[in-house]
Amino acid sequence: MSSPTVSRNWKPIIKEFAAVVGKRGVIQRREELLVYECDGLTSYRQRPALVVLPRTTEEVAAAVKICDRHNIPWVARGAGTGLSGGALPVTDCVMIVTALMRQILKVDLENQQVVVQPGVINNWVTQTVSGSGFYYAPDPSSQIICSIGGNVAENSGGVHCLKYGVTTNHVLGLKIVTPDGSIVDIGGSIPEMPGYDLTGLFVGSEGTLGVATEITLRILKAPESICVLLADFATIEEAGQSVSDIIGAGIIPGGMEIMDNLSINAVEDVVNTGLYPRDAGAILLVELDGLQVEVDRNKQRVAEICKQNGARNITTANEPEKRLKMWKGRKAAFAAAGHISPDYYVQDGVIPRTQMAYVLKEIAALSEKYGYRIANVFHAGDGNLHPLILYDNSVEGALETVEEIGGEILKICVDVGGSLSGEHGIGEDKKCYMNQMFNEQDLETMQWVRSVFNSKGLANPGKMFPTPRTCGESAKVQNVKKFDGAEVF
Amino acid sequence: MSSPTVSRNWKPIIKEFAAVVGKRGVIQRREELLVYECDGLTSYRQRPALVVLPRTTEEVAAAVKICDRHNIPWVARGAGTGLSGGALPVTDCVMIVTALMRQILKVDLENQQVVVQPGVINNWVTQTVSGSGFYYAPDPSSQIICSIGGNVAENSGGVHCLKYGVTTNHVLGLKIVTPDGSIVDIGGSIPEMPGYDLTGLFVGSEGTLGVATEITLRILKAPESICVLLADFATIEEAGQSVSDIIGAGIIPGGMEIMDNLSINAVEDVVNTGLYPRDAGAILLVELDGLQVEVDRNKQRVAEICKQNGARNITTANEPEKRLKMWKGRKAAFAAAGHISPDYYVQDGVIPRTQMAYVLKEIAALSEKYGYRIANVFHAGDGNLHPLILYDNSVEGALETVEEIGGEILKICVDVGGSLSGEHGIGEDKKCYMNQMFNEQDLETMQWVRSVFNSKGLANPGKMFPTPRTCGESAKVQNVKKFDGAEVF
Repeated sequence: MSSPTVSRNWKPIIKEFAAVVGKRGVIQRREELLVYECDGLTSYRQRPALVVLPRTTEEVAAAVKICDRHNIPWVARGAGTGLSGGALPVTDCVMIVTALMRQILKVDLENQQVVVQPGVINNWVTQTVSGSGFYYAPDPSSQIICSIGGNVAENSGGVHCLKYGVTTNHVLGLKIVTPDGSIVDIGGSIPEMPGYDLTGLFVGSEGTLGVATEITLRILKAPESICVLLADFATIEEAGQSVSDIIGAGIIPGGMEIMDNLSINAVEDVVNTGLYPRDAGAILLVELDGLQVEVDRNKQRVAEICKQNGARNITTANEPEKRLKMWKGRKAAFAAAGHISPDYYVQDGVIPRTQMAYVLKEIAALSEKYGYRIANVFHAGDGNLHPLILYDNSVEGALETVEEIGGEILKICVDVGGSLSGEHGIGEDKKCYMNQMFNEQDLETMQWVRSVFNSKGLANPGKMFPTPRTCGESAKVQNVKKFDGAEVF
Repeated sequence: MSSPTVSRNWKPIIKEFAAVVGKRGVIQRREELLVYECDGLTSYRQRPALVVLPRTTEEVAAAVKICDRHNIPWVARGAGTGLSGGALPVTDCVMIVTALMRQILKVDLENQQVVVQPGVINNWVTQTVSGSGFYYAPDPSSQIICSIGGNVAENSGGVHCLKYGVTTNHVLGLKIVTPDGSIVDIGGSIPEMPGYDLTGLFVGSEGTLGVATEITLRILKAPESICVLLADFATIEEAGQSVSDIIGAGIIPGGMEIMDNLSINAVEDVVNTGLYPRDAGAILLVELDGLQVEVDRNKQRVAEICKQNGARNITTANEPEKRLKMWKGRKAAFAAAGHISPDYYVQDGVIPRTQMAYVLKEIAALSEKYGYRIANVFHAGDGNLHPLILYDNSVEGALETVEEIGGEILKICVDVGGSLSGEHGIGEDKKCYMNQMFNEQDLETMQWVRSVFNSKGLANPGKMFPTPRTCGESAKVQNVKKFDGAEVF
């Protein structure tokens, strides 16, 4: 699809882009392009030929048309925090980066919606409307740096998605630029739109169907009351059983997270919350929200369920500062893993809640078999596991082994009826596993859809779908580097 | 697309179908085909050439393959209760009717899901799981006779969709037969599936992308407590303002319905509930559900808001029988309209809640302008209007005028940022209005998607998308007949 550099004369093309976005909107110097070599998945790197920084839908459309005319592959990129390599450049591609598209275009409190450009940071949406008692529900842990455009591409989740759903449940409409440079409006400002649900199709399509340039988000009324409950257990099975029982009782907490002993100790070493008992097999964090009376009643019921399952201590936090403190360790869990091990690898798989005990046992068995420690931190309510495989990349072959373990964990998830990815997307990283989950006909059907939007295959080529290349032969050029930002992921 | 009858020799084709579904699975006698001439929208009629009744996915696939091989257009049909003519036959088509596909294939309470064949009646799902404390949320008023397959095709709503969302929010996965006869699995048994969200795309595609043969539905835990509150107001504006204020206060009732004076009197004439004051400008029905404490607290808050907006009387019902009685009038509203007028025409439009007062005034102006009474019954919480235009079809030209009024109402809905359809679909009835809502590029994008699934255009041809034919020139062959079933719609 892409032509080799030698055959392309970039000079006139750069002029074309500069005519659209201005000279300063085109980045072409080697050292400046370094930033764009990878996203949050740092194990793959590839320098793009150019970076283009549009400010409006029309500029995006004009840039895409230039790519289309010259058959240049292009990759859209938001804040670059994605963990599956969805925004990884391909050889000699143009990157269309939304970093200058940061306007909040409309705030309509009465109809509970906000229209934003794709470069707007997730957290800004809530900040914009919180004074009026509203908030934007999807909250990836990277919410202070990730962009709404990236959230749309990867259909991002977060702690509160158990109760409120992922990004797709909060996008009402989109203005998109399709890979031929057309501007199309899909969805609208109300949920009930006739015709095909192209908004649903587009959200989570990882940049393969085009790029969103205006996003209409649903905002929610902030709950009257919030409470976080922390229970610690001798075993992770007890914590898992509590999660099943809470859901089984018809309670849907705002969030429900489990951390195992290894994670607890990593976190306490680094953040020193003093709240997570170091000898616990696991802790369970449950956030309840709603009316005061509802929260009070559910707090009582959740505490009872935890006690019945052997909880040793139960503490609760109602005030914002106390709640924040209780969450702090969980939010720092990934960063903390980086402190107890030279390197770590984060997996993102989903299982039916009922399979939790079995899958955790299997992960423990893999840990023993391969001799690598695996810390478990996860969105327990929706069965979204984030096993952290700890390793030392200076040991030859370690990364390959770790990736093998990661693959085995995914296989277990799929085998029990789960999924390859809960919230990080497929991107470059997991495309080789897609055929574990979908048969040829299923994948072909997706490819049909891709082909009508993206007939030349120029928009984010090579992502999301398995290519003949197997996982072992990937285009890795560097080792995994650990991401260092606390409270990120 | 379809070949004229004269050129097709049906005999060998019937043999092919009989080889798949058995002789008794093929209906070809004129008088038996009568039933299939229309669905719930009785103003259009067209006899199909044949009806085929498969029992399994494989039989559906084989039947579709026969159609594909002979280039025969086909239309899938569930219970035939749809109100937009989505299951209207086309000339010389084969109808694939799911009436024999009525198995509940799997009940998985632990993971809160049920797998059904498409012919399963909506209400059966709740009946199957209610003993265990679960229910299926989407509840079209026709739920005792409509099928899940039809609900999927039209993305059906219902009273409780304000809080719980429409069909698409409750379908986890589908087995579908695409128009080339392939069997494809889309979605799965957990919400977090990678790849394109083809499930979301398929739900609401009105039979144009294929037919669903197995549907995995999400079931919900039944709420601890339910309460219905009935408030009556001197004016409909006061009722409308109460709805806005209730939502504005962050309360999301299970359902929230308004009926105007004309509807109230029609209902009291027929059902004689004694609960809806005949002199009220409007009544508001609010169903609250959740924990007992939550329902109690919200009941109080809703009552306060209604009083502030001038409510004259407020009554509540907690026990199932009393609640049923309170709903009875609302459920019978459409049927009752048939008793106070020889004929009526139901419109289905959506508006942003904030535009309610304006739109109701405009509808009243249309009523006056044309001299036709219009009763208003609607899902007020989500701005889904169902104006009932009362008329007498024996008056020449009346139907045409009424359709003109219906079209004008839709135009008002779209102009204020609303939608052509809230829950009844586009089908045959509203396709001519699609270009009021979508521009050429938007519609073309949908057609791209249609074309990859349905390249020969054999699956439900002519539906959903505007054809060069304008609305006035439609294929009507009979007058509107009123549907007579109480508690339906």
